[in-house]
Amino acid sequence: MKLSEIANLVKGKLTGDGNSEIVNVGKIEYARKDEITFIANPVYEKYFNSTNAGAIIVSKSFVPPKDAKSIPLIYVEDPYLAFLNLLEVLNPEANNKETGIHSTAVISGSAIISDIEVNIGANCFIGNKCVIGKRVTILPNTVLLSGVIIGDDVLIYPNVTIYNSCKIGSRVIIHSGTAIGSDGFGHAKTADGTYQKIPQKGIVVIEDDVEIGSNCSIDRATIGETKIGKGVKLDNQIQIAHNVEIGENTVIAAHTGIAGSTKIGKNCMIGGKAGFVGHINICDNVIVTAACNVSKSITEPGVYSGYRARPQRQDLKQEALLRKIEEMQNRINKLENSSNKNS
Amino acid sequence: MKLSEIANLVKGKLTGDGNSEIVNVGKIEYARKDEITFIANPVYEKYFNSTNAGAIIVSKSFVPPKDAKSIPLIYVEDPYLAFLNLLEVLNPEANNKETGIHSTAVISGSAIISDIEVNIGANCFIGNKCVIGKRVTILPNTVLLSGVIIGDDVLIYPNVTIYNSCKIGSRVIIHSGTAIGSDGFGHAKTADGTYQKIPQKGIVVIEDDVEIGSNCSIDRATIGETKIGKGVKLDNQIQIAHNVEIGENTVIAAHTGIAGSTKIGKNCMIGGKAGFVGHINICDNVIVTAACNVSKSITEPGVYSGYRARPQRQDLKQEALLRKIEEMQNRINKLENSSNKNS
Amino acid sequence: MKLSEIANLVKGKLTGDGNSEIVNVGKIEYARKDEITFIANPVYEKYFNSTNAGAIIVSKSFVPPKDAKSIPLIYVEDPYLAFLNLLEVLNPEANNKETGIHSTAVISGSAIISDIEVNIGANCFIGNKCVIGKRVTILPNTVLLSGVIIGDDVLIYPNVTIYNSCKIGSRVIIHSGTAIGSDGFGHAKTADGTYQKIPQKGIVVIEDDVEIGSNCSIDRATIGETKIGKGVKLDNQIQIAHNVEIGENTVIAAHTGIAGSTKIGKNCMIGGKAGFVGHINICDNVIVTAACNVSKSITEPGVYSGYRARPQRQDLKQEALLRKIEEMQNRINKLENSSNKNS
Repeated sequence: MKLSEIANLVKGKLTGDGNSEIVNVGKIEYARKDEITFIANPVYEKYFNSTNAGAIIVSKSFVPPKDAKSIPLIYVEDPYLAFLNLLEVLNPEANNKETGIHSTAVISGSAIISDIEVNIGANCFIGNKCVIGKRVTILPNTVLLSGVIIGDDVLIYPNVTIYNSCKIGSRVIIHSGTAIGSDGFGHAKTADGTYQKIPQKGIVVIEDDVEIGSNCSIDRATIGETKIGKGVKLDNQIQIAHNVEIGENTVIAAHTGIAGSTKIGKNCMIGGKAGFVGHINICDNVIVTAACNVSKSITEPGVYSGYRARPQRQDLKQEALLRKIEEMQNRINKLENSSNKNS
Repeated sequence: MKLSEIANLVKGKLTGDGNSEIVNVGKIEYARKDEITFIANPVYEKYFNSTNAGAIIVSKSFVPPKDAKSIPLIYVEDPYLAFLNLLEVLNPEANNKETGIHSTAVISGSAIISDIEVNIGANCFIGNKCVIGKRVTILPNTVLLSGVIIGDDVLIYPNVTIYNSCKIGSRVIIHSGTAIGSDGFGHAKTADGTYQKIPQKGIVVIEDDVEIGSNCSIDRATIGETKIGKGVKLDNQIQIAHNVEIGENTVIAAHTGIAGSTKIGKNCMIGGKAGFVGHINICDNVIVTAACNVSKSITEPGVYSGYRARPQRQDLKQEALLRKIEEMQNRINKLENSSNKNS
Repeated sequence: MKLSEIANLVKGKLTGDGNSEIVNVGKIEYARKDEITFIANPVYEKYFNSTNAGAIIVSKSFVPPKDAKSIPLIYVEDPYLAFLNLLEVLNPEANNKETGIHSTAVISGSAIISDIEVNIGANCFIGNKCVIGKRVTILPNTVLLSGVIIGDDVLIYPNVTIYNSCKIGSRVIIHSGTAIGSDGFGHAKTADGTYQKIPQKGIVVIEDDVEIGSNCSIDRATIGETKIGKGVKLDNQIQIAHNVEIGENTVIAAHTGIAGSTKIGKNCMIGGKAGFVGHINICDNVIVTAACNVSKSITEPGVYSGYRARPQRQDLKQEALLRKIEEMQNRINKLENSSNKNS
């Protein structure tokens, strides 16, 4: 695509030669002559003169460095957004899709599969009474046990397992290795010290527009539903226990675990490796930083951090005080010496 | 089922009309007119008047609130246990089972499969010389490498991998995505800074009545056995390194990791996201709270907690003292001021 | 194998009868009469008299206890290395390998598979334009999406997923349940509070001699490459986010997570359950202890530890001071009392 065409596409103002041919997008450090790059963060301005890119997308407010080399620029409102758009245009989705239903997929006679553009890969298993919507793609070796319901425009990567009766909304993406609907961790201690399994009779409901990373575990409810709200984004290796509910548009980073029956509000942001004990409520608009452990309900929006979660301001203040503990000890020594002299 | 029949079934005493038809069980907040619910924990008594359930199972000692609405009650010794029983009766196990051996399962000619009620799902692989007991169900796309031995009445969910020569007891349940018998993490540093793989020649032994959650990793021993004792319950995403041994009836919550050769005693309860360094011993009857890191052996039963594990009483005391650190600083300031005046 | 032959094999000096037949190696506590064991660590000398082993490999400097029983010994330079060699010789690799390409494997017509000793197991899926080198073994139910490139002498265990266009070097080992090339966790917040997926267009590059444990997640780059350097060893359940780079011969223990775009140097050792925020750099030769959280770049080699990573000496010093906090409080009390008396 010609650079001038790209400028039109991103509604930017081009300076420099618009005739050069751009075939891809690239990071400013690594981009090649036939690639376009961008500067959204001033940190990257230092690469302005050294980049090999054929052009740079910059912000309207961008001022080139004094000794700037000559390179075509495209000035736009939001360089990162312009860049993302170009990513899609110059780099269309690699075709992972098996077209149609592969001959080695095992599909129950009682499953109801939309006849509009459904792809089911090799060695998949689709159990009894599953329902699969339009334009769904299920990649090889994924298993849906009985009665799973899948909406429209869903993409499920290989080696995923969805247990019986779970419900998946529309436009959901599920990455490899994830298990949805496995039994909640419930065992009642008996008199002899052994444990009796508590049957896990509920399901998991994944609402529309959810993305779930690789190797996540989302357990079915004991009774009722474990629910992942509309628009939630889960990173990899996340553990969601039985009867947990997560509110709309909450995002959770990798390795976070949420124990049974805890409810997380809407629009929360949870850092990686965070932990939540069971049976607590987190209100909307809460930010929990990475590696923070939450053992009590949170009722006020805000940022929480620390090994034992507390409002971040308190946490940082205590951390600063802790760094003075040696000084405090020295001051006590001095006071004692002077007190001893005085007495 | 009629309410009066339910009362008989749970050996309870019914008050109110026994003729209404109950079709399922439900949580007190969400139950519908044709469902029965229960109150085991007084916290839920607040829903007594608002529940839509058709009846409530309560404890023999339960006293309805003063303004109680009229609703049939069943008085029993243990409402939760009664409820669990009803769960099973009203809500029989959804049929996940493939009946018999699916035609697409690949089973080695040298494998020995019991002819009593074994189900092996689509696209499973059963390697050379595997031995599979009675009434075992293996769901689709699970792989058993050579020489795996499985007891009776075992249930293995889809997409599980069991490496060669591992031994699984009877009445074991293994959830999706779990890998049993992968190589222990052993590499010897060589003179040039690269690592040489230490061969992992041992196996994993899972004893009877163990349940293992989804996406767990249990590594084979370097030599000898990694052993999960009888009746142990493992939640999801747990990492068990080579040569670890876990004693009978110990329960471990999600995201916990146990490093090589560590031995955990019997009847322990380990919270989520706990960590254990290698080569230590934890005695019987130890409770380790969530997110606690254990770096030394524990020789006394009790509760341990904190970022660096210590007896919980010590941990909480120190935590309380830490919250006074600002006050301590102020008191030192004051002492210094008064000392300066005096001198 | 005769004991005298074993002594020759490990280039050791035998004392005692060399005619006994040894069939295997064993741990000193558990070894049987026809097994040989070793003492590399003095801790195990206490088992010298109680072991049932048929012989013990010891260091050249080893001095038997005073009351030592009579047992054949083999004196060598490095008992552990001698033992590892014997492990291989007496206990040759169990044959996991499917020979050749299984009839149920689904292999795209456009895939290029070396004709030298490649094994592809049952129910595997090999996508369009994949390239697979010599002597590669892929065990059952593993999926390679389109355009995956695999070097020579690679071993991939069952139920692994490698997403499209990722590149795997030579002599790489990948354990079960691992997902390589899943989408990085990138979502741009929009004005209405929902998130728009940022396309993940890069790949993952795994260099030569890497071993990756079970149930790991390694995300593809947004653009460019997520890179695992030559000789890196990853334990189980590790999360590597998009655009992370890990230097050569770095080893990382289980449950560790590394957030987006962070770069880890060469020859580092990372303990289990460690965490790294995104966009930081860790220099070469850094040791990070288990459960340590790193939120800033590290520019000096050394050992780092603690809930908030700092040089280990500082961390341990602060920890020691914290244990004196109650004593400090008592001393302040005493000073205040004496100050009150004086005034």
